[in-house]
Amino acid sequence: MIRIGIYGYGNLGRGVEHAVRRSQDCELKAVFTRRDPASVKIATQGVPVYKADEAAAHKDEIDVLILCGGSANDLPVQTPEMAKYFNVIDSFDTHAKIPEHFANVDAAAKAAGKVGIISVGWDPGLFSLLRLYTNAVLPDGSDYTFWGKGVSQGHSDAVRRVEGVKDARQYTIPVESALERVRSGENPVLTTREKHTREVFVVAEEGADKAVIEEKIKTMPNYFSDYDTTVHFISEEEMKRDHAGIPHGGFVIRSGEVGDGTNKAVIEFSLKLDSNPEFTSSVLLAFARAAYKLNAEGVTGCKTIFDIAPAYLIDRTGEDTRAHLL
Amino acid sequence: MIRIGIYGYGNLGRGVEHAVRRSQDCELKAVFTRRDPASVKIATQGVPVYKADEAAAHKDEIDVLILCGGSANDLPVQTPEMAKYFNVIDSFDTHAKIPEHFANVDAAAKAAGKVGIISVGWDPGLFSLLRLYTNAVLPDGSDYTFWGKGVSQGHSDAVRRVEGVKDARQYTIPVESALERVRSGENPVLTTREKHTREVFVVAEEGADKAVIEEKIKTMPNYFSDYDTTVHFISEEEMKRDHAGIPHGGFVIRSGEVGDGTNKAVIEFSLKLDSNPEFTSSVLLAFARAAYKLNAEGVTGCKTIFDIAPAYLIDRTGEDTRAHLL
Repeated sequence: MIRIGIYGYGNLGRGVEHAVRRSQDCELKAVFTRRDPASVKIATQGVPVYKADEAAAHKDEIDVLILCGGSANDLPVQTPEMAKYFNVIDSFDTHAKIPEHFANVDAAAKAAGKVGIISVGWDPGLFSLLRLYTNAVLPDGSDYTFWGKGVSQGHSDAVRRVEGVKDARQYTIPVESALERVRSGENPVLTTREKHTREVFVVAEEGADKAVIEEKIKTMPNYFSDYDTTVHFISEEEMKRDHAGIPHGGFVIRSGEVGDGTNKAVIEFSLKLDSNPEFTSSVLLAFARAAYKLNAEGVTGCKTIFDIAPAYLIDRTGEDTRAHLL
Repeated sequence: MIRIGIYGYGNLGRGVEHAVRRSQDCELKAVFTRRDPASVKIATQGVPVYKADEAAAHKDEIDVLILCGGSANDLPVQTPEMAKYFNVIDSFDTHAKIPEHFANVDAAAKAAGKVGIISVGWDPGLFSLLRLYTNAVLPDGSDYTFWGKGVSQGHSDAVRRVEGVKDARQYTIPVESALERVRSGENPVLTTREKHTREVFVVAEEGADKAVIEEKIKTMPNYFSDYDTTVHFISEEEMKRDHAGIPHGGFVIRSGEVGDGTNKAVIEFSLKLDSNPEFTSSVLLAFARAAYKLNAEGVTGCKTIFDIAPAYLIDRTGEDTRAHLL
């Protein structure tokens, strides 16, 4: 059994806990939290909850530690620090800072003889994998990534900071006609506005000026000004009833030429997820399995999904996968 | 430059030749044919065409030999034989015989210190990869593979053997309503008839009884009797004008549970190919690159796409792919 630790017990940590329960070859050994452990009730009976700053003391009890914190402040510090003691997995998703994060985790993991796999999830993650595979097989072509329909936490938070807004939920929606143009093999050049629309559901404070709120949202730079945005005002009850989930998904499409250029190929990958964090957690656990196997073979240092042969991700033998999945 | 040899110069071999021309890091060194080399005109100037049985003499001029023969009779013999002299790639697609073929290529390649990657293409190939990745991240779910719309060579050949048939082309077509049920997350159990329909275009011999031909096709065991089949009689001119291409494609979908089972995830991968052999060739070349890199690292023996880390497939550095594709 691969002994798994969870570091950070929010939506992602709870998702990893469920993913472990769905596996045959992994067991949950401990949860680490920055909150008071006594206040954290987990779903798995008999598994201890420890304070995060005591994690190092448990290094011999855990094969892979899955880091479930945020990319902005948690992971840049936590992943390299924990790589001193554990094989680690994270879902670091600040694309621009991946090279720096990679270097930090690589140095720590190599020094400790551990494996760290960073930026695991679906984007970065499965979407990145598809971008690499499709670029490798279609070198002459164009890449397209569409996100949604799904909840953007960052955009929802930005709306919540608008004066007079009590609660908000923002959905990113791919434009169907743009998707169809890409699927046709036309290789269009698409502007930001042409690819996605944004739909916002707002619970306004009592007496707030809704017209002003709507105007502030629609003109917000970086977040909304480059998009066609629709704003709906709803009640607190409607927000709870209709917008409690965290769905997401999206599309990676590469369209290119083959042969002498007469013929085209269009490759499309898509996800439709009822729960963004629960799916991300499932991906994290598969790569935790890979980290364990790689480290057992003597591999150390930082890796990304590009470096992991698919066979390492699954709890089945080569004979079995060749006979049944190939 | 990675020195590529092509063994067998039909549709697939010509496709590999074009794929090499689209790459920056590969060059075509030789084509091997069972025909008279003087009768084979290839698209690349200055590249020699040799007799297939002289291939071994050129082992030091070629880094990877791409085998472009058929799975029924050619590859079971050719791939293990050529693995004695070259790193080899093939598109062996007889699913049931993969374990045996793997063992034969593994023994030959290990003895020679070479790498052989078998069953490369899109099914087996990219579709298999997607089955593995999606099973790894969604252990509790159902797999679906749909093929088409595309030309099935085997079914076209079967129709051509019917008395009174001069020429024929068979298209396999996925049933849209079945695809929609799968995409909805319903996880339906689908019969053969519910998943695909078959459409056949026939040029009949002069004076042949079309009703008899149609009946023979529709009731042909294994090929058509389990499907709803439509038969169209067309002229030779229409066949040439409208059915000269070899398009294909299909869908791999896995739909499963995450978290505590309340939430679902649906993962879909699809291909839309104007030319089945030209796309397959592009995949073969990407894995030829991987075979070369792996062998340069000292790896030997038979591998499948499950054993190859994605980074090996692309002509870009780790720094570059992490910065731009991750």
